[in-house]
Amino acid sequence: MEMVLVSDLGRNLAHEHAQVVPISLFVAILCFCLVIGHLLEENRWLNESITAILVGFIDGTIILFVTKGKSSHILTFSEELFFIYLLPPIIFNAGFQRCMEFTFNFPYSVDGLGCWWLFPKLNFLGLTVWDYLAIGTIFSSTDTVCTLQVLHQDKTPLLYSLVFGEGVVNDTTSVVLFNAVPKLDVSRVNGGTPRVFGDFLYLFSLSTALGTVAGLLTAYVLKALCFGRHSSVREIALMMLMAYLSYMLAELLELSGILTVFFCGILMSRYAWHNVTESSRITARHVFATMSFIAETFIILYVGMDALDIEKWRMTKLSVRNLMGIYSSLISLILLGRAAFVFPLSTFSNYMNRRDERSLPITFKHQIIICWARLMRGAVSIALAFKQFTFYGVTSDPVNATVITNTIIVVLFSTLEVCGFLAKPLINYLLPHCATRKSISRQESKTPVEDMNLPMLSLEESAETNINRAKESLFLLIESPVYTIHSCWRRFDDAYMRPIFGGPCSSRQPEC
Amino acid sequence: MEMVLVSDLGRNLAHEHAQVVPISLFVAILCFCLVIGHLLEENRWLNESITAILVGFIDGTIILFVTKGKSSHILTFSEELFFIYLLPPIIFNAGFQRCMEFTFNFPYSVDGLGCWWLFPKLNFLGLTVWDYLAIGTIFSSTDTVCTLQVLHQDKTPLLYSLVFGEGVVNDTTSVVLFNAVPKLDVSRVNGGTPRVFGDFLYLFSLSTALGTVAGLLTAYVLKALCFGRHSSVREIALMMLMAYLSYMLAELLELSGILTVFFCGILMSRYAWHNVTESSRITARHVFATMSFIAETFIILYVGMDALDIEKWRMTKLSVRNLMGIYSSLISLILLGRAAFVFPLSTFSNYMNRRDERSLPITFKHQIIICWARLMRGAVSIALAFKQFTFYGVTSDPVNATVITNTIIVVLFSTLEVCGFLAKPLINYLLPHCATRKSISRQESKTPVEDMNLPMLSLEESAETNINRAKESLFLLIESPVYTIHSCWRRFDDAYMRPIFGGPCSSRQPEC
Repeated sequence: MEMVLVSDLGRNLAHEHAQVVPISLFVAILCFCLVIGHLLEENRWLNESITAILVGFIDGTIILFVTKGKSSHILTFSEELFFIYLLPPIIFNAGFQRCMEFTFNFPYSVDGLGCWWLFPKLNFLGLTVWDYLAIGTIFSSTDTVCTLQVLHQDKTPLLYSLVFGEGVVNDTTSVVLFNAVPKLDVSRVNGGTPRVFGDFLYLFSLSTALGTVAGLLTAYVLKALCFGRHSSVREIALMMLMAYLSYMLAELLELSGILTVFFCGILMSRYAWHNVTESSRITARHVFATMSFIAETFIILYVGMDALDIEKWRMTKLSVRNLMGIYSSLISLILLGRAAFVFPLSTFSNYMNRRDERSLPITFKHQIIICWARLMRGAVSIALAFKQFTFYGVTSDPVNATVITNTIIVVLFSTLEVCGFLAKPLINYLLPHCATRKSISRQESKTPVEDMNLPMLSLEESAETNINRAKESLFLLIESPVYTIHSCWRRFDDAYMRPIFGGPCSSRQPEC
Repeated sequence: MEMVLVSDLGRNLAHEHAQVVPISLFVAILCFCLVIGHLLEENRWLNESITAILVGFIDGTIILFVTKGKSSHILTFSEELFFIYLLPPIIFNAGFQRCMEFTFNFPYSVDGLGCWWLFPKLNFLGLTVWDYLAIGTIFSSTDTVCTLQVLHQDKTPLLYSLVFGEGVVNDTTSVVLFNAVPKLDVSRVNGGTPRVFGDFLYLFSLSTALGTVAGLLTAYVLKALCFGRHSSVREIALMMLMAYLSYMLAELLELSGILTVFFCGILMSRYAWHNVTESSRITARHVFATMSFIAETFIILYVGMDALDIEKWRMTKLSVRNLMGIYSSLISLILLGRAAFVFPLSTFSNYMNRRDERSLPITFKHQIIICWARLMRGAVSIALAFKQFTFYGVTSDPVNATVITNTIIVVLFSTLEVCGFLAKPLINYLLPHCATRKSISRQESKTPVEDMNLPMLSLEESAETNINRAKESLFLLIESPVYTIHSCWRRFDDAYMRPIFGGPCSSRQPEC
């Protein structure tokens, strides 16, 4: 008995250390990235994502030397870590912070939905094998965050909304598709496409409904019970826990947790956010942004480190020329697939809005930027690839290793090219007024003042631009309601939703 | 190969579900507790802790029926979960929110240090066996949070500070002692006490130094690099990550992570907190409080569920009379041990402060409340007991099972008695003016306004009382500096620390 206890204790401590060392290292590197990212904020060629990838790459090299070529990782990839802890805050924050752009530009999100329906364009090596479908879904998810860092929300609101709305729908779609692919494999024999389509609709509607219910329930509880009367700690805790609960419930019911938590975020910022105390509002928007920021940096760092996993490189058994061939064909297919949708849909969108004088058309330059921005593949791609082609980060199959290494190459190079070295010059070239206005506004917004009525938060938050953007959006919304779906929704919102679930009236009468 | 992949996938999903179900359930129960706790806020007999224990108990009963008597747990106890995720936010928040009380009442904390030095009073069954030492340390940690919920910081600032300062030092001490006990077992042969004492001093000083360095480094980086210029997200992320890093580093170096993160919290709220933007300040104090709140509720819920683990009850092989005997002897020993320190030290403290007219004496009634409040054993006791006497929540030894069950009984009953049914009546009886003033102030503070200069946050935050309390504290500090150690510290602080690490001057000259 004594012996058993002693050996147990030994195992215990070893187990503890096995956890403590990598976590400490990762947190230390995250802090380092944060400081570096801040210092490079004004830099023209670099940004946070690219810094994180480079830092991860350098760390990987160091670890490779320290472990004498055995490993380049601090942590082994854990699907659990990614899907239970890292992904929910990113997606929730996307819904929570950007809800206004998303809802105001709902027509443009049709672009994203179009891609969702007509997706199987990337199955370039044959349709029968479901691995190729998985590859297709992996590369359909894009790194929206990095692109948006370059685009500057306050200067190019339309472009920002387009890229964002499309990106989020695309990301969620790729995960939904990804989850549906194994089912497809089974049903393929019984005659395919309609059933897949039905599965998607089922997943989409149920997931959305669950997220909506969770968001509205939170709003109602916060409003009806006057939580702010006693403590704002409980308000924030309730919002966080309910959002997380909606994600977990969706996963439990085999729905898309990502869609659910995204819609939960939208509804919370639309209703629940207005029912809490002033300090809780500030806290909520900052803390959700912070959690999302940490999770993203974490994933990007991991990608940088993973690029050096020589085991996988050795296993691929392909020459550099072949790898480059696969890489360039992937990139061009992604670009082509994107262009095939962006240009026709933009033209269609412009045609539909031609009578609406307030609505800005999507110019050809905008379309180029959207195409180019969509090139970028990010953390979600990597995670899906790992989920599909490895068993807890380890693979022994050459084909699987090839897919993983290719995914990493595409993510690395697209981030470096698209986000890093070409991003700011390209935008400056195509939209020169943004660049100049940007430098002016940065000098103006030296003393940031908080605006209490907007849950949105850009990375460089300046209340002035926030207010202006909101005014612009509201202006568009109020002046041209007849041309959009919004007027119906707004009437319904004012009459039924706002009184029950909280939030200010958006009606023309200020006394409403 | 195919077969392996398919079975891997199967295992994968099963593994995912094994995690998803308990997390979902726990989060749902947490939400429920939160709402109930809010509704019972005005109740005289119940409070949040007791509600959480009862909810946990009821859930345990339900699970016991559902699993047909097999288990009463949703999650098995994980030391990792507790020491890596739940404990750090609680302790950091303790340091962060209460730093002013702690530093202003440093002389009283000597009570706690006195207990720390002279601790082995509870080894009632013999000094040679190290299990008894472990039991002593387990029962030396008390549930400060629950007590403080009853005491109302703004009405009885002195009493609150006494209980809190003593409680925190006590809690940290018990964990330090607990970590040192295995070492003691080895060195016992070579002649004991001096080496243990040396170990404690070594642990205490190094842990404190590490926390101080982490806190000051964060403050310096935030100040020197003007983080707020670009984004408040990075500010909050840096504070969170640095605090966590200090804890993990301390654990890695086999120091006391709890002491480290506690001092890191104190220094962050003293310096770093003043270097961030206004919105980051509000966010920081609320988010740290929220995280701590969630972690505490989580632990208390677990205790409630664990009370029903019939496996352990069956294994104890003791009659109800014997159990009651052990329980009452434990309670009376705790109370006696406490009284033996509180009364002499209070008298000593009163004697030392007799010339200081501003300083309020600790009355006999106060001393009774301190003794009584210290009766309560909380989440930390349970966690330490589990760490010591089980292997991942499972034990097969009758003696170990007895210790665990006794710990649970003591925690359950002391929480129910001390915190629950007797707390408010006893305080109302001993300090009647607090109760009446309390109900008045609650009506007054209907419209809470935030105070930007104080990082503190009480559960019922009202800015008015916060300001008053701070004024009172500052008054005490400024008017009677010669009698305390504060004046030296204050001069040093103003001359060297504040200019380097940030924060407002505490000197008499407002233009300083």
